[in-house]
Amino acid sequence: MKIDVVALGETMIRLTPPGYNRIEQSHHLEMHVGGSESNTLIGLSRLGLSTVWLSRLNCNPLGQLVASSLRSHGVDTSHVVWTAEDRVGTYFMERGSEPRHSEVFYDRADSAASRMQPKDLPVDLFEPARAKLFHTTGITLGISESARLTAVEAVNLARQAGWKISFDTNHRVKLWSADRAAPCYREMMQLADIAFLPIRDAKNVLGCRADQNEEVVRELACQFPNATIVLTAGEQGAFAVQPSGKPIHQPAFRTALVERLGGGDAFTAGFLSAYVRDQSLETALCTGAAAAAVKYTIPGDLPLFDRRAVERIAAGSGSTSANDIAR
Amino acid sequence: MKIDVVALGETMIRLTPPGYNRIEQSHHLEMHVGGSESNTLIGLSRLGLSTVWLSRLNCNPLGQLVASSLRSHGVDTSHVVWTAEDRVGTYFMERGSEPRHSEVFYDRADSAASRMQPKDLPVDLFEPARAKLFHTTGITLGISESARLTAVEAVNLARQAGWKISFDTNHRVKLWSADRAAPCYREMMQLADIAFLPIRDAKNVLGCRADQNEEVVRELACQFPNATIVLTAGEQGAFAVQPSGKPIHQPAFRTALVERLGGGDAFTAGFLSAYVRDQSLETALCTGAAAAAVKYTIPGDLPLFDRRAVERIAAGSGSTSANDIAR
Amino acid sequence: MKIDVVALGETMIRLTPPGYNRIEQSHHLEMHVGGSESNTLIGLSRLGLSTVWLSRLNCNPLGQLVASSLRSHGVDTSHVVWTAEDRVGTYFMERGSEPRHSEVFYDRADSAASRMQPKDLPVDLFEPARAKLFHTTGITLGISESARLTAVEAVNLARQAGWKISFDTNHRVKLWSADRAAPCYREMMQLADIAFLPIRDAKNVLGCRADQNEEVVRELACQFPNATIVLTAGEQGAFAVQPSGKPIHQPAFRTALVERLGGGDAFTAGFLSAYVRDQSLETALCTGAAAAAVKYTIPGDLPLFDRRAVERIAAGSGSTSANDIAR
Amino acid sequence: MKIDVVALGETMIRLTPPGYNRIEQSHHLEMHVGGSESNTLIGLSRLGLSTVWLSRLNCNPLGQLVASSLRSHGVDTSHVVWTAEDRVGTYFMERGSEPRHSEVFYDRADSAASRMQPKDLPVDLFEPARAKLFHTTGITLGISESARLTAVEAVNLARQAGWKISFDTNHRVKLWSADRAAPCYREMMQLADIAFLPIRDAKNVLGCRADQNEEVVRELACQFPNATIVLTAGEQGAFAVQPSGKPIHQPAFRTALVERLGGGDAFTAGFLSAYVRDQSLETALCTGAAAAAVKYTIPGDLPLFDRRAVERIAAGSGSTSANDIAR
Amino acid sequence: MKIDVVALGETMIRLTPPGYNRIEQSHHLEMHVGGSESNTLIGLSRLGLSTVWLSRLNCNPLGQLVASSLRSHGVDTSHVVWTAEDRVGTYFMERGSEPRHSEVFYDRADSAASRMQPKDLPVDLFEPARAKLFHTTGITLGISESARLTAVEAVNLARQAGWKISFDTNHRVKLWSADRAAPCYREMMQLADIAFLPIRDAKNVLGCRADQNEEVVRELACQFPNATIVLTAGEQGAFAVQPSGKPIHQPAFRTALVERLGGGDAFTAGFLSAYVRDQSLETALCTGAAAAAVKYTIPGDLPLFDRRAVERIAAGSGSTSANDIAR
Amino acid sequence: MKIDVVALGETMIRLTPPGYNRIEQSHHLEMHVGGSESNTLIGLSRLGLSTVWLSRLNCNPLGQLVASSLRSHGVDTSHVVWTAEDRVGTYFMERGSEPRHSEVFYDRADSAASRMQPKDLPVDLFEPARAKLFHTTGITLGISESARLTAVEAVNLARQAGWKISFDTNHRVKLWSADRAAPCYREMMQLADIAFLPIRDAKNVLGCRADQNEEVVRELACQFPNATIVLTAGEQGAFAVQPSGKPIHQPAFRTALVERLGGGDAFTAGFLSAYVRDQSLETALCTGAAAAAVKYTIPGDLPLFDRRAVERIAAGSGSTSANDIAR
Repeated sequence: MKIDVVALGETMIRLTPPGYNRIEQSHHLEMHVGGSESNTLIGLSRLGLSTVWLSRLNCNPLGQLVASSLRSHGVDTSHVVWTAEDRVGTYFMERGSEPRHSEVFYDRADSAASRMQPKDLPVDLFEPARAKLFHTTGITLGISESARLTAVEAVNLARQAGWKISFDTNHRVKLWSADRAAPCYREMMQLADIAFLPIRDAKNVLGCRADQNEEVVRELACQFPNATIVLTAGEQGAFAVQPSGKPIHQPAFRTALVERLGGGDAFTAGFLSAYVRDQSLETALCTGAAAAAVKYTIPGDLPLFDRRAVERIAAGSGSTSANDIAR
Repeated sequence: MKIDVVALGETMIRLTPPGYNRIEQSHHLEMHVGGSESNTLIGLSRLGLSTVWLSRLNCNPLGQLVASSLRSHGVDTSHVVWTAEDRVGTYFMERGSEPRHSEVFYDRADSAASRMQPKDLPVDLFEPARAKLFHTTGITLGISESARLTAVEAVNLARQAGWKISFDTNHRVKLWSADRAAPCYREMMQLADIAFLPIRDAKNVLGCRADQNEEVVRELACQFPNATIVLTAGEQGAFAVQPSGKPIHQPAFRTALVERLGGGDAFTAGFLSAYVRDQSLETALCTGAAAAAVKYTIPGDLPLFDRRAVERIAAGSGSTSANDIAR
Repeated sequence: MKIDVVALGETMIRLTPPGYNRIEQSHHLEMHVGGSESNTLIGLSRLGLSTVWLSRLNCNPLGQLVASSLRSHGVDTSHVVWTAEDRVGTYFMERGSEPRHSEVFYDRADSAASRMQPKDLPVDLFEPARAKLFHTTGITLGISESARLTAVEAVNLARQAGWKISFDTNHRVKLWSADRAAPCYREMMQLADIAFLPIRDAKNVLGCRADQNEEVVRELACQFPNATIVLTAGEQGAFAVQPSGKPIHQPAFRTALVERLGGGDAFTAGFLSAYVRDQSLETALCTGAAAAAVKYTIPGDLPLFDRRAVERIAAGSGSTSANDIAR
Repeated sequence: MKIDVVALGETMIRLTPPGYNRIEQSHHLEMHVGGSESNTLIGLSRLGLSTVWLSRLNCNPLGQLVASSLRSHGVDTSHVVWTAEDRVGTYFMERGSEPRHSEVFYDRADSAASRMQPKDLPVDLFEPARAKLFHTTGITLGISESARLTAVEAVNLARQAGWKISFDTNHRVKLWSADRAAPCYREMMQLADIAFLPIRDAKNVLGCRADQNEEVVRELACQFPNATIVLTAGEQGAFAVQPSGKPIHQPAFRTALVERLGGGDAFTAGFLSAYVRDQSLETALCTGAAAAAVKYTIPGDLPLFDRRAVERIAAGSGSTSANDIAR
Repeated sequence: MKIDVVALGETMIRLTPPGYNRIEQSHHLEMHVGGSESNTLIGLSRLGLSTVWLSRLNCNPLGQLVASSLRSHGVDTSHVVWTAEDRVGTYFMERGSEPRHSEVFYDRADSAASRMQPKDLPVDLFEPARAKLFHTTGITLGISESARLTAVEAVNLARQAGWKISFDTNHRVKLWSADRAAPCYREMMQLADIAFLPIRDAKNVLGCRADQNEEVVRELACQFPNATIVLTAGEQGAFAVQPSGKPIHQPAFRTALVERLGGGDAFTAGFLSAYVRDQSLETALCTGAAAAAVKYTIPGDLPLFDRRAVERIAAGSGSTSANDIAR
Repeated sequence: MKIDVVALGETMIRLTPPGYNRIEQSHHLEMHVGGSESNTLIGLSRLGLSTVWLSRLNCNPLGQLVASSLRSHGVDTSHVVWTAEDRVGTYFMERGSEPRHSEVFYDRADSAASRMQPKDLPVDLFEPARAKLFHTTGITLGISESARLTAVEAVNLARQAGWKISFDTNHRVKLWSADRAAPCYREMMQLADIAFLPIRDAKNVLGCRADQNEEVVRELACQFPNATIVLTAGEQGAFAVQPSGKPIHQPAFRTALVERLGGGDAFTAGFLSAYVRDQSLETALCTGAAAAAVKYTIPGDLPLFDRRAVERIAAGSGSTSANDIAR
């Protein structure tokens, strides 16, 4: 069966006290599996596509939990590299409530994924017509130099095989500085067919100066003329522009938030599910927004939505062109 | 002791994952007991009335749980028919959060209650002056033909005994079509002294054409001139009209919703608690609205309110006549 | 990749109160996934083999939970037939403690699996050299006539493709009587290359008269001369004989029981894992016993063991031939 | 309907940390309802008898929980006296494991039940032929002087009505001293038709000197010649003698203990269920032993057994007379 | 090390069903530790100050839980008086949701703390320069006459030692009437350097007549000219005036409420943390408001905030003087 | 107040699935705090002694949890070194049941404690007469070279101050090899006044050749003539010999095991509690055995026993001298 999307990245174990409790007052922690690229693959898989995850895992119960979780949602994990050394990255999260922030602290140094190398890639997989699209994020670039080189090599292999390239900056300030990250992101975005950016990355990392979101999109389109640019702006919705096209806007759907984590990855899944089916940019943006909206209602990092629910919500909404906005 | 209300219907086991989790991501399910008529009886019992529940149950632990739950709240279950065959109906519910809908799927086919027959009725109970009112709903009519015949027979027995008849359409689209249900509901409403309808049933099942709620009430009052008509319209409150009377309106009380299920049954309990005590229609509507409001704050299907709390909330509100509204 | 084992059967949702609580005193139920054939496939998959599950599921959250659970442990569910009708079978279990029995009551009538038909089988899968072995149990024969015909057809297709046939009587007295079941089991055992029987089925269903376990094995070997017979006898261990061979005995490993359900299926998984790798009958019996022993220490129906743990325990034990026992 | 057993006593809320945790390391406590007399009534009710509980409760949520719990198991609570003052007694229990003892500490002073008075008794209930037997325990005598006087008055009313009297010493050292309690127990035992005593009460409170259990029974039979004496001796089983009869012995059934609390009350329920049905002393003892054995397998204080399970276990055992033992 | 704050009061065990469940429908209760003065000390301790708690506790597991909870947050409990008699006060709380009120019922009569006496005070502690401030509340005055006398004695000892005195009326209508309480509060407020009052106490207990909050503050400043008056008014924020100063106002911070209990005590902790560091009245009010806001987001009674979070929120806000408001 | 025991070591967060579940099948993990030296200090503190813990912690919620846990049980944590870098070590444990082993995997590399250095020691604390005894274990020596140097420096400082030195080999094979560890342990044991060894360390690490436990003790006494040697041998009990003394033996107390972790540390606490009170070697051994026995009944790593319970159990047992054993 033809693969739709192959993605490369790290997936971690998230440990969170129940409800709004602080770790200090808790006797147990919820255990979730989460990773930007695998979250997106799970979303794609639930939306009906065929997906493969590339990564490196420690063969202890935490690594097995990561793999079994992905498999349960239909993601192919048979190309994962297993190691008896290293560790599985973890992160702890306390849910906040206004005015107390949610707090995340990572414990991911020296993880098995951070030690992946270009030679770990399953070269045979990167054949022409074997898959349609390769996806990775700035997190993979930031976790280690060898992980970054692996991602670059994977992009090159995928391009040689004629696959599309998708990249999401997803900058993590706790991983590396904007100064170090920016040139790496720019390198990827030059190679990408589609680039996702949160507005904060466009401004804080890539240095976009425009005030209006649609101006930011235009600015990025000038810098990366070969890529479809997708800018996400939280409650202001998402903006996109194709090479030589006009910016379009998709408002965010109203949601009663249950868990914020994983919303961006769900958006990417929704968008790509339309993209690899050759649907219009408007449809892709709208499907992305609907996928994110449903994800926000589901506990945990994973976009455990049903295809039907996403389509129903997407169908209830249109998108407006930048021309309309501009007026 | 004189019985206030006798009701006939099916009660099921509801299984729900905790919080907003999906079944797929859950390791355990909350177990609740719920059934429209028994929910109403529990409400009546907690409001100080004497109640009897008629039904048919399988004598396995699920059936015992249903009966012990009703008994714990003071409902008399000594006339229930027990069988070693058949099953207890179950239903699964996933709580949604905007824009994801709550989803219910029933697994109630071939339940013990759906196989009750007119001959299962405790004929001796239906004596003049033994009870004041008999209540059932459209669900009982829809679960099977033999259940429907049992309900019709019970209504006839109750009328012969001089009891009042209360009927709530409570249409379930997953049970049967509006076309099949409508004539059965009309038959009941012709016999009823009091008929409860959600606005959606008035429109979608009974085909009321009026736009305004008070017009719908008037339309129904013309069709069923012997019954007090009570129309519930969610956040727009409830509307009622007595034979030859004028429609009155009761606004809904503001609530911070905890669990929506069972609100309508709680309303009916509140209304009937006043009705069987010969209180005014205004008081009945207001008590119904207060009972529903308190129920919405309580997890599970059951109206586990205290009489004092319902009365305190009801006391904080008046009702306005349709004349006032019409102006 | 070549498939090792294909199995056909029903998988249900098990609902159990926590610990030794009775359903009546519980507010929530643990939810487990369990089915004899799929339990065995999960065990085989965890022991390193490639497996495919054939069945029919309702596409509601319970059906999705069954499939995602199997996939998480590496079982291929891509040939499952999905239906929007019917239901997923459930069963309720209360754990007992001496002298109170554990109690199981099934609610599986009219399940999607019970309505599978021969035409639901993925004929293309049954190619020579595509898989090594087909497995099913007496439960599949007992849930419905159409399921039985489907199992018979699958065995015929598998034999035509040159695969080995494995059958476990696994008689369920709550499904059908010994009288009705016995000829169906005999038909299967005549076709099987390997037949598993608990000692109670050999005696109560197939009518074996011998007192000693090894005599029972010999008696069955005479009746089914083409099959390897494997008899499991609880704490007395397991007994096996190959066509024209001598009975051998494998004592049970000592276990501190955590959950009894699924032990037999784990035994079958352990045995078959050695069998399809062409290991000796002694090794197969011993691996089966070790697999069962580890399963008994794991909550739920599923044999969530690690290959290494099973092998370590198996390595700590030998088996004695029936000659030794006989003396 | 004729009442089988009326009992008078206090029921409390038990709060226990989960498993073997200490209170200090726990974030939540299990909440159980327990009281010696009501435990026995619940057992009797589940064994098919009609029961009424007399007590005094505070009308707060804890009092309501006590009443709803009893009602759920079929005990009639309509004669309970409700008060807006006083409190519901609580007790805390930490489960121990050898060599650490289980620890109970009571917080029951000034409870509503301890303040019941003879005038609280529903005099109308105590009619000839309205009920068969009245039961209370030494706990009711010990919680306060007014409670003791109420119990004495109830016994007198019951005797006047021609009911049988059942009394269980059930001495609580944390309530009062053996010296103060002994004359009160003796007074009751002179009035009782049946008296239950744990062996420790016979020795430590009533001062029996005999070493052998059957000698103790004989000693008590001499002192209280009008009562059937039932002595419970833990793993050594139970001993009983009727007026002018010979002692008989019932061994304890083997149990895998889940929760020890409430075993004695379950024994009393089993015994009395046979007694009020006019079954033999042997049957009563055996039913008591079986009821206790099943209770030990059920979490909480309450004997949530099924009549069938108790009868099945009782049927598997006989009883031997003291003569047989003596030889 | 110099002590910053010494406080005297009772701490109880709070038992609450999970979420919005009623006690009647719950199988377990969350266990929290809470007491007005110790809540404030915990907050102070977490804000970096050195604190000592004076009280009387029963040496059972509940008393140990109270002490270990305080110690875990850094409060010195070494001066607590331990007793083998008496009890630890408990209170039960059901969380409500509009329009159902949260309900609290206390079970605190005859607690160990209510029986503390002036001679229980650690006289040696009350040395000049040993601590900076003594704090107690109206609850301590209301639980018993001996507790009130102990508080009065402690205030006298603290004043002799030159410590500042802080008093919070914190009137509990379930403890004593406004009539009895008012003179006791006035006595304390005459001795206090700083007095906290909720607006409802100012009006309902102390009989303030002014309509506007700032007028109430002025009115109190006239009556208690030696004290800094701090008035808390819920969503309208807090108001304060120093002797001979002008009233200032601090708006409340917006919060998404998780648990309301303990907010006032957290406010006091925030205020006093600035006060004992000799910061401005504006800073103290603002730190109090920020501390309360963070507390509202944390389950349980305790202000388990981090100093950094409180300071970050406080820094985001200013305070306006009453002059500004008045205009 | 004079300190009784100062200890140095690392404390970690333990994460364990509930009951006998595997991590893979769990949705949440219990969170426990555990570290050999701090476990012992908590035990000592609960047995009435004054204790101080020296370590290095990350100031994130996990580090705060470690410190607050120790404080709650009365251990002084005011000398802990806090760092904003590094991490808190974690370890994951799956409880096994025969024949499946419990499995522990550590994730402790680069923890804050492993980076402690001699200069982190609070030199001022190590004054003559400030404390009685210093304790550390082989784990501290094994986690890093800098930690080992810190432990050596602490021992030197303690000796200079005239404190006693206590050392427990507590060899962890997952930390370092016996070859590397042995000379470090020997260095410590030469400096120690009291040395604890499990029998497996005596044999596998220190190379003791004797078969009988009492011979092993004698062998160690020859090698380390200045130390009291305490050998623990699981179910065979403990053995000890003082310089120039005769070996004595203390049988293990029977326990119904709840959680094995932390038993050795509890033994050490029990022993040292007697030792620092100058009680006899027999009493110390017996108190150690009783403390371990109680710990085994308590969930988690911590010895949350009451002094009274330990003393009661110890009082029920004597110890026999090696002479008696030898006969």
